Amino acid sequence: MTSNKKKLRVGLFGFGTVGRGLYDLLKAIPSRQVEIARVCVRDISKNRHVTDLEFTDDADDIFNDDSINFIVELIDDAEASWHIVRRALEQRLPVVSGNKKMLARHLPELIELQQCTGTALLYDASACGSIPVIRNLEEYYDNDLLISVKGILNGSSNFILSKIFNEGMPHGDALTLARKLGFLESDPTLDLDGWDSLYKLVILTMHAFGVYVEPERVFTFGITCMSDADIRFAREKDRRIKLVGHVEKLPDGRLMMSVMPHLLSRNKYIYSVEDEFNGVVIKGAFYYKQFMFGQGAGAKPTSSAVMSDITACLYDYRYEYKKLHGHNIPHFTNDCTLRIYMRFSADSQLERIGFEEITEEYRSLDQRYVVGRVSLANLHANMEFIRSEGMFVMAYPEN
Amino acid sequence: MTSNKKKLRVGLFGFGTVGRGLYDLLKAIPSRQVEIARVCVRDISKNRHVTDLEFTDDADDIFNDDSINFIVELIDDAEASWHIVRRALEQRLPVVSGNKKMLARHLPELIELQQCTGTALLYDASACGSIPVIRNLEEYYDNDLLISVKGILNGSSNFILSKIFNEGMPHGDALTLARKLGFLESDPTLDLDGWDSLYKLVILTMHAFGVYVEPERVFTFGITCMSDADIRFAREKDRRIKLVGHVEKLPDGRLMMSVMPHLLSRNKYIYSVEDEFNGVVIKGAFYYKQFMFGQGAGAKPTSSAVMSDITACLYDYRYEYKKLHGHNIPHFTNDCTLRIYMRFSADSQLERIGFEEITEEYRSLDQRYVVGRVSLANLHANMEFIRSEGMFVMAYPEN
Repeated sequence: MTSNKKKLRVGLFGFGTVGRGLYDLLKAIPSRQVEIARVCVRDISKNRHVTDLEFTDDADDIFNDDSINFIVELIDDAEASWHIVRRALEQRLPVVSGNKKMLARHLPELIELQQCTGTALLYDASACGSIPVIRNLEEYYDNDLLISVKGILNGSSNFILSKIFNEGMPHGDALTLARKLGFLESDPTLDLDGWDSLYKLVILTMHAFGVYVEPERVFTFGITCMSDADIRFAREKDRRIKLVGHVEKLPDGRLMMSVMPHLLSRNKYIYSVEDEFNGVVIKGAFYYKQFMFGQGAGAKPTSSAVMSDITACLYDYRYEYKKLHGHNIPHFTNDCTLRIYMRFSADSQLERIGFEEITEEYRSLDQRYVVGRVSLANLHANMEFIRSEGMFVMAYPEN
Repeated sequence: MTSNKKKLRVGLFGFGTVGRGLYDLLKAIPSRQVEIARVCVRDISKNRHVTDLEFTDDADDIFNDDSINFIVELIDDAEASWHIVRRALEQRLPVVSGNKKMLARHLPELIELQQCTGTALLYDASACGSIPVIRNLEEYYDNDLLISVKGILNGSSNFILSKIFNEGMPHGDALTLARKLGFLESDPTLDLDGWDSLYKLVILTMHAFGVYVEPERVFTFGITCMSDADIRFAREKDRRIKLVGHVEKLPDGRLMMSVMPHLLSRNKYIYSVEDEFNGVVIKGAFYYKQFMFGQGAGAKPTSSAVMSDITACLYDYRYEYKKLHGHNIPHFTNDCTLRIYMRFSADSQLERIGFEEITEEYRSLDQRYVVGRVSLANLHANMEFIRSEGMFVMAYPEN
């Protein structure tokens, strides 16, 4: 209760969907302790129809303003975000960031910087929008009981999949609608090819298991190449296709990760996560499964998550990265097998992937697929190949 | 990361379902920092088939043992629990408690005691078993955006309702099965009459809105009087009956609370919460709805929640009761109306409840019910009357 009187004068970077959402939130529910002092944007000439904020395009105007004691960074550009966040920490200014890509790439340096400077960086808003999953993994699921974290981490691609699956909307229309609603990143391949989910998974894995895994090491495949044939296959099996991020401690103690479409049966919690919602299932040895569910994209939920990060800083909250210093830290591996569905067009493609076992095979003039077990390492080694050949793979769990 | 080397020697009170669960958990996944030093039980002569624990029936054996630096209190008796927890705090021993009833009755004194002694009392395990809902309300949903918390807070009654609804199991058989699985409190009316949900709701309300409401002030009604006719009514309307705890900030800023069966339609998140699971929906102005879901009863999930409380203490975590010191603290009221279904047997009963509006009425030789709007204050004033006359009421929201 010590920090109750603290006042934050925020230097805000970025005034896109989330930045403006934060401004709207503070308008709707004014805070006695938080005010936006100045906003740094790329293009200062753009008319934003906001009269009560001071805009600048020079970061120095924020970093040299002694009255500003807090940084909120909500820009798309990962490189620029890294410079801002690093500078903030070096100046011992607590900072909230929403840039998944930057965070996933620079986590080890950012953790070190926080320790050296004794300054907080919070980013709960970066993963799963309004669901406080990072803080829960960090604070609550903090013992050796944790087995896996599996979830729909990207609201935009899930929105598109929902429209296609439930309303039979053509792929292109669903994409247009998602963009119109402000659900897509400025570069939509981030959402659709699984990169956004990957960055979030890397962040979650740090807080879940205390392990940093470079994004490049994780098999990542999205829904861009999904065809009507794949959707038909899912419907025939009474399953839904969802883009799933997954990290799991294997029985031998090693850690596997993947981002890929999953064929989900009705008995899975995340089967019912629709539209722009995110859902995360946390599985433990003793508490079985827990499920957290909430809006994962859009101005309001994301900006309220940013606001929660800001409020946490008011109370001097910091991630402690407890698990990073724990014993029994698991080692990352791609050396495991999984059951997948794979659509392909030529036998050479099939051979290259090297299935260990094929249990179902279909060939017609215009469609070929197999179901079988394959090593995750093989998939990872052929990630670019699969993508460039227009093939489609999905995890296809037994139940 | 400062407290990483701390070691807790735990004085444990109670060795029932959860106490033994904690012992099993520490056996299965040994902790370098947590060990049970001694266990205080009521009946020391009982053979517990445990050879590596020291039992006593004298609390002094724990409180006078200088090597014990932590208390875990997992007993049923609220009065005894209060003495243990108070004494622990007075001796500046951090304490974890799972006694909902004791907590709900003594929250204001316990908060003061924690402040005076600078000693932590944690009780996340007390509400919703394995779901970290208290800590999330305290830490994450900590701004003025929160509108309501609504949920299935009692796993045992939900288990029974699921068996009756989904498997057509007779009431008595469902009760027997729940008891066999260790889901029921030693006094089953705590679960079935809504008291357990009420105590949890009082605790959640403190952490959600910063308000302490004495349990007596909240309309509380359970499923003991539920009849086949009520179940038939629910089925006809394609709804399910669930026992729901509910706290909501009304548009005028006041706070209403209730514990009662709800007729839930399929579009509600908690409609699908089955068996011994708990589910909580947190609604906010900006983030719409969030849903948390997990096992709410049984040895394993509850003891893993206790373990999380213990681990939090290792890192000097304390509830800050931030909202208690906030501005805009809402006032509790029963002065609001709700739409309910009420089964009754005599017109005098109906008159006494004083409906403001009746929109549906059914009378046959063996069954009478109405649907209509009634003031919550009237229901509260007639709580004992409704119970003693064998009537049955359920909230019946429009959608």
